[in-house]
Amino acid sequence: MEKHTPTDYPIHPLLEKRWNNRAFDPHPVEHPRLKSLFEAARWAPSSMNNQPWRFVVGEKNDAAYEAMSEAMMEANRQWAAQAPFLVLVAAHTRYENGNPNPTALYEVGQAVAYFTLQAVSMGLTAAQLGGFDSNRLMEMLKLPPEDLPVAMLAVGIPGPQDVLTDGVAMRNQAPRMRKPLEAFVFGAPWGTPAPLLTK
Amino acid sequence: MEKHTPTDYPIHPLLEKRWNNRAFDPHPVEHPRLKSLFEAARWAPSSMNNQPWRFVVGEKNDAAYEAMSEAMMEANRQWAAQAPFLVLVAAHTRYENGNPNPTALYEVGQAVAYFTLQAVSMGLTAAQLGGFDSNRLMEMLKLPPEDLPVAMLAVGIPGPQDVLTDGVAMRNQAPRMRKPLEAFVFGAPWGTPAPLLTK
Repeated sequence: MEKHTPTDYPIHPLLEKRWNNRAFDPHPVEHPRLKSLFEAARWAPSSMNNQPWRFVVGEKNDAAYEAMSEAMMEANRQWAAQAPFLVLVAAHTRYENGNPNPTALYEVGQAVAYFTLQAVSMGLTAAQLGGFDSNRLMEMLKLPPEDLPVAMLAVGIPGPQDVLTDGVAMRNQAPRMRKPLEAFVFGAPWGTPAPLLTK
Repeated sequence: MEKHTPTDYPIHPLLEKRWNNRAFDPHPVEHPRLKSLFEAARWAPSSMNNQPWRFVVGEKNDAAYEAMSEAMMEANRQWAAQAPFLVLVAAHTRYENGNPNPTALYEVGQAVAYFTLQAVSMGLTAAQLGGFDSNRLMEMLKLPPEDLPVAMLAVGIPGPQDVLTDGVAMRNQAPRMRKPLEAFVFGAPWGTPAPLLTK
């Protein structure tokens, strides 16, 4: 299923095609193909090249997958636990010298954008979710205190929409919507639309 | 200038081509083209579609540009203030109901990844920097307390490397390096390489 992106200005097809498709085919993805998703994340930028992104990969029925499935909110489990792979996204929040890295989450976000875009380019879907019990997951997967769960990704081959329950199907098929540029691209002072938007 | 990305697994050319090129041509970018960069950021994903990314755009010699240039560390100003545009990246850290959004920075990171990749696809460079006086910038650009500066982007057309001072040229031309996948793609428990990497 492709989804229409009502852009006001042209953007690259890879960026335009991505959406959070939650419908999975039960077939797994071959491991070499999966490695390209992590390879894409690997080349994201970060402050002083500290690379604060960390991932835990679970494959259906293994211990990591079961822990992630158990920690999810039921509303997410309905669709995400249909995926052949679950990935925990975590942020290493300290630099090597022990100082806190205030932009760790920002950098992890860039790595995950690369991951999801690589998935789109390979005809896969990597759907993000944030509803899970973070403390429970840290305990089950034994995360150190300086590594914080941020999100999960359900990864696989897109499947037919009719595998989804009604509520999820409705969310999945909703039209894509965003605020206009004027709402978040400012000039000086803050809150005024940037001059480039008005001339 | 293109830079070699020594990937271990194939990734999409758009992701492979991006690097933090700090050498700018003095010519500005036409405004309609610049709007496509913000449009790309607009379509990033976020929790409950809250879209926490905010930008301030400065064009050479205007008030926003001058404020950003002034707030930068001198080592960044040397190269970034050669760009025709500076962009402040900020995160709106609360949901509409007033609750804190713990993943705002993560979501802003994804939007900036889209922005920088759109730039690459158009033959532009959007180089990130983190060294600036955040409080000074909040004061000069009048950011509300719930909107936090995260990074800056210097945006323009790539120029010849010889516009850079020696120290910046050395950083700019350094080979691209990253940790191997084994260092950040784990199975259960945390810290063990993911099974997909070892078989």
